[in-house]
Amino acid sequence: MIKTAIVGYGNLGKACERCVCEQNDFELVGVFTRRNVNDIHSPFNSKVYRIEDIYKQDIDVVLLCQGSANHLQDTALKIASSFNTVDCYDNHSLMREYINKMNDVAISHSRLCFIGMGWDPGIFSLMRSLYSEIGCHNIHTFWGKGVSQGHSEAIRNIDGVEYGIEYTIPKLSALDAVKTGNITQLNDQEKHTRECFVVAREDADKDDIATKIMSMPQYFKGYDTTVHFIDKEEFLQNHNRLCHKGIVISASEVNGYRTACEFSLNLDSNPHFTASVMTAYARANYNMYKDNIIGAKTIVDVAISYLYKVGDAHKKYDII
Amino acid sequence: MIKTAIVGYGNLGKACERCVCEQNDFELVGVFTRRNVNDIHSPFNSKVYRIEDIYKQDIDVVLLCQGSANHLQDTALKIASSFNTVDCYDNHSLMREYINKMNDVAISHSRLCFIGMGWDPGIFSLMRSLYSEIGCHNIHTFWGKGVSQGHSEAIRNIDGVEYGIEYTIPKLSALDAVKTGNITQLNDQEKHTRECFVVAREDADKDDIATKIMSMPQYFKGYDTTVHFIDKEEFLQNHNRLCHKGIVISASEVNGYRTACEFSLNLDSNPHFTASVMTAYARANYNMYKDNIIGAKTIVDVAISYLYKVGDAHKKYDII
Repeated sequence: MIKTAIVGYGNLGKACERCVCEQNDFELVGVFTRRNVNDIHSPFNSKVYRIEDIYKQDIDVVLLCQGSANHLQDTALKIASSFNTVDCYDNHSLMREYINKMNDVAISHSRLCFIGMGWDPGIFSLMRSLYSEIGCHNIHTFWGKGVSQGHSEAIRNIDGVEYGIEYTIPKLSALDAVKTGNITQLNDQEKHTRECFVVAREDADKDDIATKIMSMPQYFKGYDTTVHFIDKEEFLQNHNRLCHKGIVISASEVNGYRTACEFSLNLDSNPHFTASVMTAYARANYNMYKDNIIGAKTIVDVAISYLYKVGDAHKKYDII
Repeated sequence: MIKTAIVGYGNLGKACERCVCEQNDFELVGVFTRRNVNDIHSPFNSKVYRIEDIYKQDIDVVLLCQGSANHLQDTALKIASSFNTVDCYDNHSLMREYINKMNDVAISHSRLCFIGMGWDPGIFSLMRSLYSEIGCHNIHTFWGKGVSQGHSEAIRNIDGVEYGIEYTIPKLSALDAVKTGNITQLNDQEKHTRECFVVAREDADKDDIATKIMSMPQYFKGYDTTVHFIDKEEFLQNHNRLCHKGIVISASEVNGYRTACEFSLNLDSNPHFTASVMTAYARANYNMYKDNIIGAKTIVDVAISYLYKVGDAHKKYDII
């Protein structure tokens, strides 16, 4: 059994709890939180602990389910000195710095830490990297229409925000141009718009919140961003689904001939799919660590065969 | 420089020659063939040798470009005792036996042999395996409409066949049913038809050729197969393109929520794309062998980061 802990008990932590409990080769040691333990009731009757208590436990791999916008980096760097970890850190522009810090901690403590193991970063990174190495060019990623958990959390972390959600929306003209190979250079801002729905606290300054959102570096700055302030009832009724979609496209000449690759995901629940990716890579972490591999690794460093359950090596033959 | 040899000089061998010659980190040692060396003129002025002469050479990795239907297995097993290899063996039903034989040879001679490194087996196998391990079910592959090189070669190997080509065609009703998640069980025969165009030699028995095609195990038996006999002029005019398409689809509930994954390829030239995959994995073979990894490996055993050129480790950060 793979002894697993979950740190953070928001949407992603809860989805990981469900996913881990459904596997027959995982044992959930507990959920670890910064919140008051007594306020948390697990539908799976998981044990709930304060995060400080994690260091007393016997754990094979920790699923880090805090948001990237604030707590994840700090928590990860602390926990990686004692345990192997899997996270879905999603701040692309700070990725290099984070990987290097985690690698230093992991190497010096002989730990194996998996970084960015969601769908983007994650599965989509794998596709971009594969496309690129087999000679496909003009690689573009489009997200949406769907809810970005990272961007939504970044909104909710602003003072005065009671509820907040962000929808990433692809610009269809850009998507069509890329599919037909008629355009090669487009940045993320040219490909997407961002639409935010916010419930502000009564005493909050809405203009200030909107400014803080639209000027937030890495997340919103430079994007075509719209912020709508709505009331709590409307929010709870119309913005309670965390669906998402995305596509990684390449249309180019490979080796002198036209080649098109497309990988798309269409998800009813972003956190539940992300949780199933994290859980799969937690199994890979367990298998890879048994091969004495340590350090900070991303999805491109992990062979797919490490995802197999112990004893499932025959899958290699069946699926080829 | 990665010292590379090409064995077999048909469509795939020629495409590999072009692809290898276009890389700045590969050196093509030569093309090795069973045919008369003097009959072969390389557009890249490559050295051409008889296949027996390969054992005198200094080679990092051999690209095996013979067809799976007859010569590849025998050649591969011989060459793997002296060199690392990459092939795109495509007989799914004999894959396990072939991998095991190659693994025995590779292990006992400390070689690293990559098997099935095309697009199917190959990239599509990677997708099926990934989908499966992250909890996606109802995984289906559709091929076509396009030319299967393996099936076309199998036709051409029949006595009395002068030219032959096979088109694999997806049944659109099956494709739609899978995309909407309305059907879970379909075998390859229920998903595809096979259409063959054959130019018979003057003295050949066409009924006998048609029977041999339609009853060929693993390749045509059990499929809805049509065989058309046409004349040489029509063949050369209308059946000279090796385009292909394919898609790997999953539409299922993952972790309790509906999830759809689709990966598609649309190729103007099947051999040229296959060659770019083989060349990419030849680089991975070179990198992985330097890490002292030996044995027979398939695409699921190779982390994407092994595909990077030496010195390109920073790509890991850029593409995540």
